Amino acid sequence: MAETARDGSTPRGFFITFEGGEGVGKSTQTNLLAGALRDLGHTVTTTREPGGTPAAETLRGLLLDPAQDLDPVEQVLLLNAARHSHMRQVITPATGRGEIVICDRFIDSTRAYQGAAGGLDDAAQPDLIMDLHRMVMQGRMPDLTIMLDAPVGTGLDRAAARAAATDRFETAQRVFHENLRQGFLDIAAREPDRCHVVAATGPAEAIAAQILGIVLQRLARP
Amino acid sequence: MAETARDGSTPRGFFITFEGGEGVGKSTQTNLLAGALRDLGHTVTTTREPGGTPAAETLRGLLLDPAQDLDPVEQVLLLNAARHSHMRQVITPATGRGEIVICDRFIDSTRAYQGAAGGLDDAAQPDLIMDLHRMVMQGRMPDLTIMLDAPVGTGLDRAAARAAATDRFETAQRVFHENLRQGFLDIAAREPDRCHVVAATGPAEAIAAQILGIVLQRLARP
Repeated sequence: MAETARDGSTPRGFFITFEGGEGVGKSTQTNLLAGALRDLGHTVTTTREPGGTPAAETLRGLLLDPAQDLDPVEQVLLLNAARHSHMRQVITPATGRGEIVICDRFIDSTRAYQGAAGGLDDAAQPDLIMDLHRMVMQGRMPDLTIMLDAPVGTGLDRAAARAAATDRFETAQRVFHENLRQGFLDIAAREPDRCHVVAATGPAEAIAAQILGIVLQRLARP
Repeated sequence: MAETARDGSTPRGFFITFEGGEGVGKSTQTNLLAGALRDLGHTVTTTREPGGTPAAETLRGLLLDPAQDLDPVEQVLLLNAARHSHMRQVITPATGRGEIVICDRFIDSTRAYQGAAGGLDDAAQPDLIMDLHRMVMQGRMPDLTIMLDAPVGTGLDRAAARAAATDRFETAQRVFHENLRQGFLDIAAREPDRCHVVAATGPAEAIAAQILGIVLQRLARP
């Protein structure tokens, strides 16, 4: 169990994130993984971004409201405020207790949505997102990131089938989603030790079994 | 008039900020100065921070709500998001039209409230506030800043007399307000070309006349 250090030292916890575009099954896989790890005796906290604290949930509402005129820089600043609150009040305390934290979206979503797909990567400040992450979050990265990947049509169709598809991100154009998918794949290619790309097509249970295998292998590392 | 460039080039506008602690008369002086400049034929936009756009006003509500648990880093990120929105949608367009913009609070309030008085100056990241300002606002500073200065008791008494003294900042302790006042005075001492300290004690009309003199002298500069 991650929360029980074998040598009696302070437990270190383990921080897992799920990343990927719309409708690839992140929340389903978050819940399946949490259940499987709890069955194995681990203490697991599941959470999501933006959100996880009262202030961050208020910011989530502002970010997802299509009536709000927020440019990518303003979105990144609000996401960082929400993330800082979430790290300070939820994620860091839980990993400090030795728990496994599973978070639906984190810094890679900001890099893919506001960066690769939102245009901040090409702007006058190409490093804004990671510079800000280092500045306000001390550059803290997840221990393991599962990138759920699916062809754009598949993900968008699933998202549309959920019927509530009217928020700022879900109504964006197809080219945006292609750039988004490529943004996630580029991050995974650059950071292979942390990121595992998992094909999000097929039965959820089969995908969950594959993810559990990756997680158990990582938890077993000394 | 600031909005009429004598050589026919693009008008440059002029950006004035009022700064200072609670109850020193910033909004009164903003309105008196705007009225006097309009009487002289200038086009003037008055605004305030945090606020000035729908998204920034929503963030103002979040920032001033004492029920919200926001640490100084989170406050600075939200203030920067609000400021970026305000610059993009109000201040830059108005100065671009050659207008005089008078803003009640701007970057110096962040430096004094979250920095000098809020503790971010002493933290692991002493330059966070100005680094962030350079990163997301290209370091844009006002052309002229009037620092309204009063002994802490005076300002707090005036603020209390306004009776709505229950927001996050107004309920802060006296030591906070002493650090705040010193924070503003330190900024003015370091940036004397931009900042003018004006004693905020005495009749509002006498203070307004002094401020108008400073502004007209600055507008007359080539």
